[in-house]
Formats: sequence, structure tokens, C-alpha cells
Amino acid sequence: MARVSQAHLDARRRQILDGAALCFARNGFHATSMQDVLKEVDLSAGAVYRYFSGKDELIGAIVGEVLGQVREAFEEAARSTPPPPPDRLVASVLGRVLAAKESLTVDGRPAFPGLVVQVWAETIRNEELSTLLREGYGAVRGAWARIVGEYQDAGMMRPDVPPEQVARTMMAAAMGFIAQQALFGPAPAHDLAAGLRALMSMGDDTGAR
Amino acid sequence: MARVSQAHLDARRRQILDGAALCFARNGFHATSMQDVLKEVDLSAGAVYRYFSGKDELIGAIVGEVLGQVREAFEEAARSTPPPPPDRLVASVLGRVLAAKESLTVDGRPAFPGLVVQVWAETIRNEELSTLLREGYGAVRGAWARIVGEYQDAGMMRPDVPPEQVARTMMAAAMGFIAQQALFGPAPAHDLAAGLRALMSMGDDTGAR
Repeated sequence: MARVSQAHLDARRRQILDGAALCFARNGFHATSMQDVLKEVDLSAGAVYRYFSGKDELIGAIVGEVLGQVREAFEEAARSTPPPPPDRLVASVLGRVLAAKESLTVDGRPAFPGLVVQVWAETIRNEELSTLLREGYGAVRGAWARIVGEYQDAGMMRPDVPPEQVARTMMAAAMGFIAQQALFGPAPAHDLAAGLRALMSMGDDTGAR
Repeated sequence: MARVSQAHLDARRRQILDGAALCFARNGFHATSMQDVLKEVDLSAGAVYRYFSGKDELIGAIVGEVLGQVREAFEEAARSTPPPPPDRLVASVLGRVLAAKESLTVDGRPAFPGLVVQVWAETIRNEELSTLLREGYGAVRGAWARIVGEYQDAGMMRPDVPPEQVARTMMAAAMGFIAQQALFGPAPAHDLAAGLRALMSMGDDTGAR
């Protein structure tokens, strides 16, 4: 066999992963066949199976990559100093998520949000992936809760709600917005930030409770 | 063939749908076989195929039902007079969603949130379902935007953010929380309400922008 450079191997692996990601974003993991992937990447079965033993390994690689990218987006956003207010924190996550795999499009739309929803669906039925996701979620929630603690310490937010609950709520807004992109098409991250700003403007006093 | 009552037919149909919903919540639509469904409902193929021509029809029935229940939860919550503040509106949706199909559990946990995520994933790859979901989403967003307009008219919320963006943000929080339940296990709707209340307490003035 001719010797090929590591760069070539890496590029080929990337090409296969991106083609498979596109198929999965379009059609889900289980309704996609290896034939679909081969057709998408325009490679022979032999060429593809040199890198991945089969669909399960391909799914595992894509799910791991997507979970990693989403986690990284949440963690990166939390690293700014001083921590941004919630609207900007959430918009920053979304900006990063929507920029991930920007070159992957289905019918001219970013494919990544759809891929994220497929990954969630796959994760529910797979104990190993579920553990991986839970671990990443716990780490992110911890980082975001620390930021919430800083809002509270600075007197910017009422102090009687556990920071974990607020972190969870901000993460829910970001996750739900990603699902909306997947289900209803693109919308600017700015819309979510503006919506959060409007909610934040309501103050504590919104009538008898 | 012996004559059977409509009530019996309905109950049998319900039994099949619930068994299938459980299989789908556990394992997704495409990794579930008709054999899995037959085993779950403990009926013969003949009995099941009398009601559903095959897996696609079963999937269509479940997806339609789940989308309808989620839509109903969002619309019901919007019907209270006077409209509740955002935290209670969102908690009310979640209460309804989490109460849907409460008897369906996987490993002792409510199966419905997982089913919702599977339905989202399925919807992305199916034009017909996608249209159905988009239509329901548009109606709900309109109803929620009217409530946001009332917050703004009453001077409870800054008026310079389009109500649709705020409605979208509140729906994102609810959708993301459903995804969290599916991915990380049950949490009380109250946590999301408390998180929103904390965000609302921040007011307009959260530092230079």
C-alpha cells in the first residue's frame, strides 16, 4: 500500500465525517444507510471502512464531536471576564453553536441545529452517550451557576433562587432556541438576547403571586 | 367476525398507541421494529395490523398526537385571564406537558419528554410533519405574543422588543426544559419558574452594553 501522509488521512477522515454529518442532519441516524454516506462522500466502501468499522462507529464519532462542540460553546461563553449578563451569555453560546460546521447546509440552511436534535434523540437511547452528555451538562451548569452567583453577589439578581436553577433556565433557553432553529429554520441569536432582555426588564414586581 | 363495540376498538387502538409510544420513547422511531411493538403490547400481528397498516402509520399517529398535546399545553396556558407573568406561564405549560401520558414510564421515569425529542428528530426529516409543527408553532407564538403585548401595554415590560421575539424566548425556555428532562431526568417545573423569576429580577440596568 502506498504510504500516505497523516495530513491526508486526517483530511479524508474529516471528509467522511462531514458527509456523514450531512446525511444524519438530513435524515436522522437510523434512517441513514452506509450506502447514503458512501454516495454523499463519493468514496468507495473500502475507502470509508478503512476509517470507520461501520455506521455505529460513525454515529459515535459524530455524536461525540457534536456534544463536544456544544459543550465548548457553553464553556467558552462562560469564560469572559467580567461575566456577561444573561442575554449576552446566551447569545454568545448561540453564536458559537450556529457557527459550528457552518459549511454544512441542508437546502441552503445550516445543518448543525438539526444535527444537535438528532444527537439528543440518539443520546436518549444510548447509555454511554447519555453518560457523556450528562457529564458535560453538569460541568457547564456548574460554570454557569458560578456566574449566576456573581450576579447575585453584585446585587444584580434576587439572591433567593439557587444559582443552579437559574443556570438551568438560561441553558434551557439556549437549548430550546437551538431546537427552534432545527424545527422552524434560522433566526438570529440576537432575537433570543432581545427576548431575554425584555424578560429581565420586568423586575420583581409583576403582580400578586 | 364477531361484532365488537366502538369502545372496545378505541381501547384496543389506545393500547397499541401507548405500547408503541413506550417503544419509541425508549429507542427512537427507526430503531424500533414492529416486532418490538407487538411484544410490548402483547398482541398478534393480525390484531395490530387491523388498526395500523405498518410502522409508518403508527409513527404518524404518535407524532400527530404528541405535537397536538404539546400545542394544547402551550395554548391552554395562554388562555388564563388575566395572563399570568412569564414564569407562571412557562411553568404551567411544563406542568401540562409533564402530566401528558403520565402513565408511560421508562425505567420509572416519565417517558413523554423523551418522546417529544424523538418527535422533533422525526419531524426534521418529514416535510408533512414539519408543516404540521410549523403551523402549530406559529399559532402558539401568536397567542403568546399577544400576552407579551399585554405585559408591555401594562408597563410591566420594556416596550422596545417585538413581542414575537419575547414569545419565542419564553417558548425556547419551555422547549429547552423539556429537552433537559429527556436528557438528564426529571426536574420540577418550579425550577424553571424560579429561574425565570430570578432573571426577571435583574431589571434593565445590568451594566454598560
